[in-house]
Amino acid sequence: MRTGFVSICSRRLLLSFTSSPPPVSSHLSHYCATANYKQHTAQKIDGKLIASDIKATLSAQILNMKKSVNKVPGLGVVLVGKRKDSLSFVRIKKKACEQVGITSLVVELPEDSTEDEVLDTVSALNQNESVHGILVQLPLPDHMREEKIINAVSVKKDVDGFHPVNMGNLALMGREPLFIPCASRGCIEVLHRSSVEIAGKKAVVIGTSKITGLPTSLLLQRYDATVSVVHAFTKNPEQTTREADILVSDVGVPNLVRGHWLKPGVVVIDMGSTLVKDCSSSHGCRVTGDVCYEEAVVKASLVTPVPGGVGPVTISMLLSNTAEAAKRAYKWTE
Amino acid sequence: MRTGFVSICSRRLLLSFTSSPPPVSSHLSHYCATANYKQHTAQKIDGKLIASDIKATLSAQILNMKKSVNKVPGLGVVLVGKRKDSLSFVRIKKKACEQVGITSLVVELPEDSTEDEVLDTVSALNQNESVHGILVQLPLPDHMREEKIINAVSVKKDVDGFHPVNMGNLALMGREPLFIPCASRGCIEVLHRSSVEIAGKKAVVIGTSKITGLPTSLLLQRYDATVSVVHAFTKNPEQTTREADILVSDVGVPNLVRGHWLKPGVVVIDMGSTLVKDCSSSHGCRVTGDVCYEEAVVKASLVTPVPGGVGPVTISMLLSNTAEAAKRAYKWTE
Repeated sequence: MRTGFVSICSRRLLLSFTSSPPPVSSHLSHYCATANYKQHTAQKIDGKLIASDIKATLSAQILNMKKSVNKVPGLGVVLVGKRKDSLSFVRIKKKACEQVGITSLVVELPEDSTEDEVLDTVSALNQNESVHGILVQLPLPDHMREEKIINAVSVKKDVDGFHPVNMGNLALMGREPLFIPCASRGCIEVLHRSSVEIAGKKAVVIGTSKITGLPTSLLLQRYDATVSVVHAFTKNPEQTTREADILVSDVGVPNLVRGHWLKPGVVVIDMGSTLVKDCSSSHGCRVTGDVCYEEAVVKASLVTPVPGGVGPVTISMLLSNTAEAAKRAYKWTE
Repeated sequence: MRTGFVSICSRRLLLSFTSSPPPVSSHLSHYCATANYKQHTAQKIDGKLIASDIKATLSAQILNMKKSVNKVPGLGVVLVGKRKDSLSFVRIKKKACEQVGITSLVVELPEDSTEDEVLDTVSALNQNESVHGILVQLPLPDHMREEKIINAVSVKKDVDGFHPVNMGNLALMGREPLFIPCASRGCIEVLHRSSVEIAGKKAVVIGTSKITGLPTSLLLQRYDATVSVVHAFTKNPEQTTREADILVSDVGVPNLVRGHWLKPGVVVIDMGSTLVKDCSSSHGCRVTGDVCYEEAVVKASLVTPVPGGVGPVTISMLLSNTAEAAKRAYKWTE
């Protein structure tokens, strides 16, 4: 799919735009700051601030839980192998747990573990009463069947929301999944806290991954947006994206979404995250999204940066899902 | 939702259209006949003929199965109450089973049955080795929780494909649901047998029901269409539908989709089915779809009529799902 998108990206069309009113409330939320560009129109959404507020609320809630039932939520993490990016993600999640008072139990297994060893680990975490949420850090090594391992996670502890029962209940209107995938919840949280109206708006989601694209399209539909999904087989994707009041991209192709892909006033939620070389950085690299930020900022009404946009909110949604799981397990409400 | 659509329907816009090539193969399938209208362009898809061909194939397959393992597929049907439409649907399904050699076991329960009585019936059918597929005729009486009863059907016998595990696996790319809802399979079957290319085409689905709209949008996405979903909250739905190369409607509002909602050359799949009064009919009523057929036929390249379009193909997909379930149960392949 990525190859397809790169080839799509290389085509540029110079077409005129039809203007339409921005779908955001005229009252801008305190999470939105003016982007520092000469020719700006967009407000930058501060994902770190949103995440910080969510974590503060969760911390207080977990403190109350401890006082009330002498229990705290627990997150079990299964990490197979030593992929640098996975190690980094797990470290970030563990630290975030500590910040709000969630205990975390990271089980590290060697790269050459068997599928049965991973399944046994998942089974033990399913049985562990102090673990309320379980996540299996993806991707797994090639010799393992991801489907089998994800399906083994108890539906009641599936804080990533990738189990087909949770995904099916997300798709089915009128049903309530126990968990919604964190990135998708993060996207909606960002929209809500930025006072963006969703119902009746045209939303375009670029990408169909189970982690982000698919659940985000299903969730936006639950909030009554008219959703279109663009992918590698979409001809002239910019024609579809230019219709969007809300544009969500999660493909992992830097600068895929250019200025001419956007309708003036669009809300841009950039969920891409790719490590690219950057000689000017002390690390020699930096994280970048799918959207050409400099072009988006002069076209959009609101835009999430990468890093510092949806990413931190996604992590806080994992904490929120884990806290919800614990509340259900202890039948505790504030 | 229906009220919303009716109000949408009352708005009419007179806008110009941009022409584009029809997305169908120039070689028309033998299922498509010229519609008998003075000003026609559309070919009418003969759903009865498609269904008849599918049933002939299934009959031969089931005969082979009987010769080979001395077993035939069995369908269990749970019917609660005496709704006229439900009685009629169950009668049609039972007759279709007989036509291809599938045994059917219809369990009729009174309207005032308890939820537990229905659950016990489902449980007995789950255990019954000669029943390979189970369907609970919907809608259920208001005092029953549909979700609980549908969830009780064994995933391996869920020939309606409404169980969240099957729906989740339909949504998740790379996974294979055991069953795909019959109407959605019927829609794809009609497109395939009419030589309509799906990949890369813009498909618009009107309606989000779990029976048709939702699974059809997910399935079209699996076939690499760029899918948009229109519903009661969509503003100016005709703007979106006019982009469609393939338009699927399943709302139950007669004449919702008018000629000016269509792009010239579009393929129209009408999955609506509503009983309306008709003094000219000997029954005093007739079944009608969502699409204004007379207007569609002069705009579309292909169109399914109602009745005689997707309906018969949907029934044949139920037979096919039941046969597949039996083949899996007996580990039998031709």
